[in-house]
Amino acid sequence: MGWMTDERGLDKCAANFVPLTPLSHLRRAAQVFPTQTAVIYANHHATYAQYHDRCTRLASALVKLGVAPGDVVATLIPNLPAQAEAHFGVPACGAVLNTINIRLDVGTVSYILDHGGAVVLLVDSEFIALAEAACAAMDGPPPAIVEVPDTDAGHPPTGRHPLYEDLLSEGDPAFDWILPSDEWESLALNYTSGTTGRPKGVVYHHRGAYLMTMGTVVSWQMVLRPVFMQIVPLFHCNGWNHTWMMPLLGGTLVCCRDITAAAIYDAIADHDVTHFGGAPIVLNMLVNAAQEDRRAFDHTVEVFTAGAPPAPATLSKIEKLGFNVTQVYGLTETFGHVTECLWQSDWDALSENERAAIKARQGIAMPMMEEITVTDAEMSQTPRDGKAQGEIMIRGNAVMKGYLKNPEATAEAFAGGYFHSGDIAVQHPDGYIQISDRAKDIIISGGENISSVEVEGVLMGHDAVNLAAVVAQPHDKWGEVPCAFVEIKPGSEATEEALIAFTRESLAGFKTPKRVIFGELPKTSTGKIQKFELRKRAAAL
Amino acid sequence: MGWMTDERGLDKCAANFVPLTPLSHLRRAAQVFPTQTAVIYANHHATYAQYHDRCTRLASALVKLGVAPGDVVATLIPNLPAQAEAHFGVPACGAVLNTINIRLDVGTVSYILDHGGAVVLLVDSEFIALAEAACAAMDGPPPAIVEVPDTDAGHPPTGRHPLYEDLLSEGDPAFDWILPSDEWESLALNYTSGTTGRPKGVVYHHRGAYLMTMGTVVSWQMVLRPVFMQIVPLFHCNGWNHTWMMPLLGGTLVCCRDITAAAIYDAIADHDVTHFGGAPIVLNMLVNAAQEDRRAFDHTVEVFTAGAPPAPATLSKIEKLGFNVTQVYGLTETFGHVTECLWQSDWDALSENERAAIKARQGIAMPMMEEITVTDAEMSQTPRDGKAQGEIMIRGNAVMKGYLKNPEATAEAFAGGYFHSGDIAVQHPDGYIQISDRAKDIIISGGENISSVEVEGVLMGHDAVNLAAVVAQPHDKWGEVPCAFVEIKPGSEATEEALIAFTRESLAGFKTPKRVIFGELPKTSTGKIQKFELRKRAAAL
Repeated sequence: MGWMTDERGLDKCAANFVPLTPLSHLRRAAQVFPTQTAVIYANHHATYAQYHDRCTRLASALVKLGVAPGDVVATLIPNLPAQAEAHFGVPACGAVLNTINIRLDVGTVSYILDHGGAVVLLVDSEFIALAEAACAAMDGPPPAIVEVPDTDAGHPPTGRHPLYEDLLSEGDPAFDWILPSDEWESLALNYTSGTTGRPKGVVYHHRGAYLMTMGTVVSWQMVLRPVFMQIVPLFHCNGWNHTWMMPLLGGTLVCCRDITAAAIYDAIADHDVTHFGGAPIVLNMLVNAAQEDRRAFDHTVEVFTAGAPPAPATLSKIEKLGFNVTQVYGLTETFGHVTECLWQSDWDALSENERAAIKARQGIAMPMMEEITVTDAEMSQTPRDGKAQGEIMIRGNAVMKGYLKNPEATAEAFAGGYFHSGDIAVQHPDGYIQISDRAKDIIISGGENISSVEVEGVLMGHDAVNLAAVVAQPHDKWGEVPCAFVEIKPGSEATEEALIAFTRESLAGFKTPKRVIFGELPKTSTGKIQKFELRKRAAAL
Repeated sequence: MGWMTDERGLDKCAANFVPLTPLSHLRRAAQVFPTQTAVIYANHHATYAQYHDRCTRLASALVKLGVAPGDVVATLIPNLPAQAEAHFGVPACGAVLNTINIRLDVGTVSYILDHGGAVVLLVDSEFIALAEAACAAMDGPPPAIVEVPDTDAGHPPTGRHPLYEDLLSEGDPAFDWILPSDEWESLALNYTSGTTGRPKGVVYHHRGAYLMTMGTVVSWQMVLRPVFMQIVPLFHCNGWNHTWMMPLLGGTLVCCRDITAAAIYDAIADHDVTHFGGAPIVLNMLVNAAQEDRRAFDHTVEVFTAGAPPAPATLSKIEKLGFNVTQVYGLTETFGHVTECLWQSDWDALSENERAAIKARQGIAMPMMEEITVTDAEMSQTPRDGKAQGEIMIRGNAVMKGYLKNPEATAEAFAGGYFHSGDIAVQHPDGYIQISDRAKDIIISGGENISSVEVEGVLMGHDAVNLAAVVAQPHDKWGEVPCAFVEIKPGSEATEEALIAFTRESLAGFKTPKRVIFGELPKTSTGKIQKFELRKRAAAL
C-alpha cells in the first residue's frame, strides 16, 4: 500500500503506462531484428521485416472482411507459418484468436464455432472438409472460411474458398495495428477438453501472454536468437506461448506439418534448433527413431516436456543423445506451463536413477507466477513431506480471465482466490510439487487431453449399453489410451468392435476406446463407479 | 480493443491478477534458491534464505519504529548489504525507499529529507556526521536515524544512534510482507542531481521496477545464477534496478565500499563476477590500472556502460582484457537504462574503428520499452539519416510516475504523451539513436552547432589523455568557442599546442578547442563530469 501522502500529478499517462501485450515484441523485432530469420517452413523463409509485414497485411485484410475489435477469428491449421502469423495478425486488428484442434470431430468443432462465435475461420486445405462439415452443422451463422493451401505438402487449394495469400496481397502493409488500450482485453480463446462433456472456452488476456514470454526466457535460460521448433500444437495453449516469445529474442521459429523423429532431427541438424517443447511421446519418438531418421548434431538441445512425467528409461537415453530435458506443468487455464522442475546444481552429483526421480517432479512456480502450492480440501497448505496428497492451487498473472459465457464455472474454478487445478499432488520439503494422480477423469493420449466423460457419454448413447466407464490404459507409444468398461443392458448384446465403431462415428480417432471390457462395474456403496479399480484392471490387461 | 461481446465473469480476481513488484522475486528466490549465495561483502556471505530473513526482519522492525505504508524511509549508505536489504525490506513494509547520494552537501541532504519527508534514515557510520548536520538543518521534523557501522572497514559505531543489526535482531522473521495491492503504488523516490535549482524527486512505481528486471535479463543475455558486482551506486536509479533483478535469477550480488580497479579485479578473480554496470570512468580505471592491481581471469565479463559514450581508445583496450562492453542509456526518470546498443552479428566483420563508432551509439529501445525515438521541436519524427538533430522522446513502462509534489514539472516532462529526455541526438537509418549532446552541452560557435561529445572523443584518442571534457567558453566574436579540460595519464605529458594540433587532424577548425586546461576534472558521485563547474571556469578564463 505504497501510496504517498501527496501523489498529485503521479497518475498513469501515455508516457509511463503501456498495456502489456505480446504484440509489442513483434513491433520491436521488426525494428531491431529486421534481417534476422523469423520463420522457417520448407521453402518459406521470412525475416522479421517480412513476418511483420505479413502479419500487418493479415490484420488489415481481416478488417476489410468485416472483423471488428472483440470479434473472434478461428483457425484450423497445423503449426505452419499462417498459424504463427494469426497469433499476431488476428490480435493486431483487435480480434481474439481461437485456434481449434485439427483432430477434433465435426460435432465438437461445430460446437466451438457456435459457442465462440467466430466470424472468420482460417483453414489449412487438409482440414477444409472438416471445416465445411462443422459449419454446416452449426446452429448460428457460419464463419467466412479462408483457405490456406500447402500444395507442396500435397494439400492444394480446393477452389471453393478465398485464399490466404490473396488476402495478404490485398492487405495494407501500412495498416496501423490496433493495440489493446487495456492489458486485460481478450487475446485468445482456447477450448479445453473439459471433464464435463462440452469443452469450455478459456479466455486469455494480453497481460498474461506478455508475462509468459518474459518468465519463460528466464526458466528456459534463453539468450538472444534461439532457434525454436514449434512441436507443441499452437492450438494447445497457443503452443505454450512460445511463438509470442520468439520476437522478444530475435529468435527463429521452425515450423513443421507432421511431427516425426526425422523431421525433428533434420531441423536440429539443418537449422540448429536449440529449444523445443513436447509431450513425453515426442521424447520416446526421438529415442526409438530408426537409425536412418537420426542426424548428428554437436550442441545441447533444451527440451521442455509436459503432460506427463518423462519415464526414467526415456530420460536416460535421450540425455545421452544431446537433449537436456526439463519437466514443466500447466493447464489450458494457465496459458500452458506455470511450474518448472528447476535443476539445483547439487543434484548433479546424484545417481542417474535419483536424477530421473527428481526430473519426474513438476517442480516450483515459474518466475511470472506468484504462488503454486498444494492444499487440502479446506484449502489449507498440506504438509511438505512428499506424502500428503492435496490439490494443486495456482495464483499468478498467467491464469485465464475465465471461461467464456460460463461465470458459474469460472467462479468455481477461482473459489478462494486460487485457480483449482483439479490435479492431485504431493509437495516435497523443498517445495517441489509432484503429481500423484492426474485429475481422475482426464486421459492423456499422445499429448491430447481426452475427457473420459465425453467418451462415456457417447457409449451411453448406444442402445445396448447400460453403463460405461472409461479410464486411461498405459500405452507404450501414446502414453495412455482410453479403455472402456461396459455393462450391457439385460437382453441386449454388442461386440467390442461394434462399440468402438459406434464411438468413431462421433469422436475423433484418438478419443475412441482401444479396448472394451464387458461386465459389472465396481461401485461404491453410494453407487459411484470406482475408477481407481478400473484403472488397475486396465493396467493389467 | 479486444473486449468480447460477452465478458461476464471474466474480471480480474485474486487468482489471475497479482500486482507486479520486484518483491515477488525475493519471495520466490527464498523458496527456489534457499542455499544459493545471494549477497557477498567482505566476510558477509548470505544465502537467499538468510537474505530473505534479514529483509523480513527489517520490514518488521520498521513497522515497530512506526513506519506506515506510504511513508518514506531514506538511506545514506554505500553499496553494502544493508543498502541492498533496504531495497526489499523497506517496500516489504509498504514504505517508499529514498536512497540519498552519500556525496551530497549538508544543505541538499537536508532539503531532500524535508521534501521527501523521510521518517527513518538508515546511515552508514562514515556518513553519520553528514546525516546529523542535515537533520539539524531541516525545517520539518527530522527522521529517526538508524546507524549501520562497518567496523572492519574503519567505520565503528558512534554510539549515538540505534544500530541496524540490533534492529534486525528485534525484527520478526515471520512478518507478513505488505505487498502492493496496486502495481502503481510508489516503490522508490530518487532525487535528480539537478544542475540548476533544487533536485526533483522522481517517484518509481512497482510495475516499472518489475518490468526493468524482466527486460534487462533479455538485453544482458543473463542466464540463471549470474554473479553481479554492484558498482553503480544504489542511490543512482537504484543501481539501474539490478539488485531487484538478482533474485529473479538466483544471482549473487557482490558489494563493495570503495570502487577501485583493484577491488573490481579482485571480485572478478575471487568471485567470478560475470556482469557489472558502470560509467566510462570505471572502464578507464580498469584500462589504466597499475600492474599490481590487476588479476587474471578466463571468462568474459559483460559490462553495461552509461553516462557517456565509451571512448574508442578505451573500448579497444578493455575488450582485449576480457570485457565485452555494451552502451546503454537512460535517466533517473526512466529507472535507469532504457536503450541498449544491441550488437548485430554482421557488425563482427567491421574494423575495430568502425565497431567502436557503433558502440558509441546509445542504440534502440530495450524490451520493456514501447517507443524511443528522436523528434523535432514540433514532436515530429526527425529523418533517420544520422544527421538531423532532435530530442530523444521516451514512452514505455519504465518511466517514472512523475516528480513528487511538482505536478507542473511532471506535466511539462510528459507533454504530448512522451517523456522529454532533454538529450539531443541523431537517429541512424537502422533506428539506433546517438546522442550528440545534452541540450545544454551543445556549443554554438558562429552559428554552427558543435557537439562537445565529438570533440571529447577525439581528445580521448590521444595517448597521453586520461579524461577530457569540452564546454562552451564565451567569445566576443563567435559567441562561444570550445574549451577543453584534460586529465593527463600518470607518467605522460602533453602541451596545449600539441593537443589542439591533434584535434585539428580530424576536426574542422571551428570545432577544435581554443584552450586546453590541464588538471583533475570535477565529477559527481556517479562519475559524471560536472560540466556546469567547467563552464564557470571557462567563463572566468
